[in-house]
Amino acid sequence: MSFKTISSQLAAQLDKDLMGPEIGFTLEQLMELAGLSVAEAVLKEFPYSKSRKSQVLVVAGPGNNGGDGLVCARHLALFGFNPVVFYPKRSSRTQFYGQLVNQLKFFQIPVLDGDDDWAQYLNPNETLCVVDAIFGFSFKPPVREPFGSILQQLRQVQDQLPIVSVDIPTGWDVDEGPVEPNCIIPKVLVSLTVPKPCARKIESLETQHYVGGRFVPRSFANKYGFEPFAYENASQVVKLAPE
Amino acid sequence: MSFKTISSQLAAQLDKDLMGPEIGFTLEQLMELAGLSVAEAVLKEFPYSKSRKSQVLVVAGPGNNGGDGLVCARHLALFGFNPVVFYPKRSSRTQFYGQLVNQLKFFQIPVLDGDDDWAQYLNPNETLCVVDAIFGFSFKPPVREPFGSILQQLRQVQDQLPIVSVDIPTGWDVDEGPVEPNCIIPKVLVSLTVPKPCARKIESLETQHYVGGRFVPRSFANKYGFEPFAYENASQVVKLAPE
Repeated sequence: MSFKTISSQLAAQLDKDLMGPEIGFTLEQLMELAGLSVAEAVLKEFPYSKSRKSQVLVVAGPGNNGGDGLVCARHLALFGFNPVVFYPKRSSRTQFYGQLVNQLKFFQIPVLDGDDDWAQYLNPNETLCVVDAIFGFSFKPPVREPFGSILQQLRQVQDQLPIVSVDIPTGWDVDEGPVEPNCIIPKVLVSLTVPKPCARKIESLETQHYVGGRFVPRSFANKYGFEPFAYENASQVVKLAPE
Repeated sequence: MSFKTISSQLAAQLDKDLMGPEIGFTLEQLMELAGLSVAEAVLKEFPYSKSRKSQVLVVAGPGNNGGDGLVCARHLALFGFNPVVFYPKRSSRTQFYGQLVNQLKFFQIPVLDGDDDWAQYLNPNETLCVVDAIFGFSFKPPVREPFGSILQQLRQVQDQLPIVSVDIPTGWDVDEGPVEPNCIIPKVLVSLTVPKPCARKIESLETQHYVGGRFVPRSFANKYGFEPFAYENASQVVKLAPE
């Protein structure tokens, strides 16, 4: 089954359109639905069970991809998981990011900053998976610190501790894929709204591919050159079959 | 199975808490999740099928209950239904309500105002159900026009055209139930966060009861005297068994 993709440039335009005066979505709305869809993909891929480990480490970057991760962590808690959030570089762009952190505290979800020992959560005996919500479709290389070191640590454990990447595997070129040496290889990719070209590079990697962010009508999808994805019932994610 | 309820007064306090400075939810977030949960309840109760009628009339009131209805309509469209929104008295409280209407237009969902012939959609041969998103937990009687006449028309067709009420069946006293003469009797009630006392009055009415608005942790539920509801997997609603 083939899937359409849109370039990083078009993805930026699509986002701008959705939050522009005509359509009028707010960041809060889209982020809530995007984060929820990522949490649902985690649940589908790693079904929750009381009898097994349920800790999920969410690594959140400074921008909107990180915001999706913060929302995802909250929904993971509602699904029964024990999320821990590592948020080393916090956005001061809008007050809303602070509110997202308060919402995590409301759920008693630990939120670690750059000085905390986040690496203790990279223990595969205790942690089920890592959500990579560091950078999204507006990422331009190179990866700057502290994220370079963080990615290096994630890469060292990725064979034992599966990574779930939000929209873009962090460090990958959005259009070209894993062009830098030593890129992480996620076990799961959750493309938001529509895959970006780098998602084609997971075909040979046995990465499970989901699409989430269920919020555009057919007419809008068609305008951007893709068809709506085949979401079932009320599900906020759809798993794509391997190519 | 028994369920806990909270009074109209406590529900107002709970809402204020959720959007207060400490917890920091925004109206946009909570409304998105609440509206999504109502759409999911509609889907569960009236499964979508290409081969049968799929029109849903959403009647939206001027406040937050109406906002939940506007969001619900958008998710119903994403689920495959053909929603039509009747929104006779529009809120000018915040710009966000205008944005919710723009989002409906984005989905090509008709939004009727008070001058439009909304009653044409009360045809049970074409319409699957009516979502009553007129008034919520802050409603105080009496019902004012145009909503008195609207309720009267809904009541006339309710045996052929099932009503799905959002949080409170409109016209019912939030704490006492259907105390006014000629109240509507919904076939489905979707309580948000936690049922209000009037929900106890549906026991004898064969009304299906759902709880949606999945956004509070156990500690907060306990503070308000209830236990979290038994949502399954990523579902945003849970159906309560009859008492």
